[in-house]
Amino acid sequence: MENYDFLIFLAIILLSTKAFGLLTEKVHLPQVVGALLAGIILGPSCLGIVAKTDFLTKTAEIGVIMLMFIAGLDTNINDLKKSGVACFVVALIGVLVPLVLCGGVYYLFYADSFTAKNVLSAAFVGVVFTATSVSITVETLNEMGQLKSRVGNTIIGAAIIDDVLGIIALSVVTSLGGESANPSIVLLKIVLFFVFACVIGFFVHIIFKGMDKNHGQSRRVAVWALAFCLMMSYVAERFFGVADITGSYIAGLILCNITNTKTAIAKKMTVASYILFSPVFFASIGIGTDITGINAGLIVFTIILLVMAVVSKMIGCGLGARVCGLTTKESLNVGIGMVSRGEVAFMAAQKGMDAGLVNPAVFPAIVIAVVGATLLTPVLLKASMTEKAPETANTTA
Amino acid sequence: MENYDFLIFLAIILLSTKAFGLLTEKVHLPQVVGALLAGIILGPSCLGIVAKTDFLTKTAEIGVIMLMFIAGLDTNINDLKKSGVACFVVALIGVLVPLVLCGGVYYLFYADSFTAKNVLSAAFVGVVFTATSVSITVETLNEMGQLKSRVGNTIIGAAIIDDVLGIIALSVVTSLGGESANPSIVLLKIVLFFVFACVIGFFVHIIFKGMDKNHGQSRRVAVWALAFCLMMSYVAERFFGVADITGSYIAGLILCNITNTKTAIAKKMTVASYILFSPVFFASIGIGTDITGINAGLIVFTIILLVMAVVSKMIGCGLGARVCGLTTKESLNVGIGMVSRGEVAFMAAQKGMDAGLVNPAVFPAIVIAVVGATLLTPVLLKASMTEKAPETANTTA
Repeated sequence: MENYDFLIFLAIILLSTKAFGLLTEKVHLPQVVGALLAGIILGPSCLGIVAKTDFLTKTAEIGVIMLMFIAGLDTNINDLKKSGVACFVVALIGVLVPLVLCGGVYYLFYADSFTAKNVLSAAFVGVVFTATSVSITVETLNEMGQLKSRVGNTIIGAAIIDDVLGIIALSVVTSLGGESANPSIVLLKIVLFFVFACVIGFFVHIIFKGMDKNHGQSRRVAVWALAFCLMMSYVAERFFGVADITGSYIAGLILCNITNTKTAIAKKMTVASYILFSPVFFASIGIGTDITGINAGLIVFTIILLVMAVVSKMIGCGLGARVCGLTTKESLNVGIGMVSRGEVAFMAAQKGMDAGLVNPAVFPAIVIAVVGATLLTPVLLKASMTEKAPETANTTA
Repeated sequence: MENYDFLIFLAIILLSTKAFGLLTEKVHLPQVVGALLAGIILGPSCLGIVAKTDFLTKTAEIGVIMLMFIAGLDTNINDLKKSGVACFVVALIGVLVPLVLCGGVYYLFYADSFTAKNVLSAAFVGVVFTATSVSITVETLNEMGQLKSRVGNTIIGAAIIDDVLGIIALSVVTSLGGESANPSIVLLKIVLFFVFACVIGFFVHIIFKGMDKNHGQSRRVAVWALAFCLMMSYVAERFFGVADITGSYIAGLILCNITNTKTAIAKKMTVASYILFSPVFFASIGIGTDITGINAGLIVFTIILLVMAVVSKMIGCGLGARVCGLTTKESLNVGIGMVSRGEVAFMAAQKGMDAGLVNPAVFPAIVIAVVGATLLTPVLLKASMTEKAPETANTTA
């Protein structure tokens, strides 16, 4: 007879991630934090009820692939074009500074010698902290009536470009971490993958565009789209050594400007994602976070990493904004708004651990720093903005 | 590094089941037939591209659990009450006759001696052919403007009761096929499961009813519902030796009359189901259908099984209808309308094979007989009904 344990594991994961998610939402934290907590509690470092099985690992992988596919689909290419140079500068400096600072902290603490592998590990930790997740910032700005201000527009535009830059950085470090360690071949493979994506994307775009009018809303298009996304994820990993989530994100980008189709696909993927796949993904991150190995050294590292995670975005993005002509106050707010991290950070950290480049003992520190930075964002943003609320309120559209 | 093959397997399954499904739909056959064909072609008996892995088996299991959950949710208890005695008689005789005739054919061909195991195997094959799937009949009747006729109403009412009876029969044979083969203990366990389901159902119903007004449409309710469904499936298998799909079907029934909630849950489950889980389920049935072992003996068996599958429903349901006062012609049409089988038959056959009770060599014969009966239904129904179309047309509402 078969073993039916996976059914009850799934049920427990769904119940607990949702219950904890609603609890954290009550105290104005994102549900993701609750889902992670649920995973930590269920996992071996706490109750030890649910272990990572092959089935859960693969389901979680589909979960993260779907999340990145949805992120790709939801990208608004027109917004990206409009947001222009300022946002690009904010995003670029905002990616480089955390890459160097957070990677540097890891290197100082955990690299015993100057080897390529140690540098690569540090780069991976740096990459984890490059990608902003602005959903919390958007919520906070919206609450304060500042979403349509110059600060709000800059943050949203920069966050989109930031995602793309983060994915490129992730592709580079993942590929370098692969077996064929020759950097020039690795970079060639990345370039070839993007060429491949452009060629395939050209034809797939035409095919889906053709279905847009008659079948844009229909089931078949969503099924084709998911198949395409899975195919791109597989090809990225298997033939180009690029992360599978890069493949699915690009699959999303390819379809993101086909009006009817894009909306219908994103809607259906979102349902499949939140009903099963993404709870399993977040729970599995929590399950993989072994907090039993936390000691004084790790706590110090965690605190410094958290500080760097916050400061690096404030400096990087703030500097970018200032260079592009925003006032000092506005630049500071842009910097603070970009501090929060999210799903992409967890994905990158998980990839680093899978590739044997991120020390599993350090994983809890990374998770805590990501969550901590996210939690601090609305607090800092409110403190900074309410200080001179009457003036900035005038810029609200 | 991880193995990413499951991504491309999923992509291939999604592409091929949908492509073949659309092809079979073009020739007015259900998409399920195409999905099965795709599975047979991909599987070891044909191209051998996709093999059954642990991951695919579990994903398929979730697929069938979801399908039965949706079937439970979509049950209209009021229709069930209204359809009354006539439908119950049609369903009951229509379940008993195929059980005996189809089971009997299997026994005659494959039982070498009169043992409990052989009788049980025959009963399993019989159960496979008990459950009607009227979607094709409904389509055909609708096309002919006969859906609201006395024949149409009787068929739809009987099909609902037929589902419940089929599930009960499946529970009994699955339990008897378990390790604890003592029939009285097995029956006691089944009764205890239904008692358990009533008690749990009472509380769960109240909880979901409480959420109906405020959160009926929200994500959380769908997630809770899926968790409840998985929990019931697990408990059914683990503690009561009842099939997991019985558990999920009953979970659906428990929630089926909470207006807002039920619709929202069913909608979301349907999306998750058709986008990934049910294609994997149908493909896995096809992959498990090993057609390389087909020989003359099996072909004869298949033909006789198919004839019995058709005739047994015509006799059983026709007799039931006649007893309840329908005309001979109407009774014949009711009988023909109930001939088609569907998902539930495949699920039961799969369960029988998993339990070691259905000979894997015979599996293709069962699949072909189920599909064949389904394909013959619209043909026979049109032939029988158009013969005296002008008269029966008067009864159309």
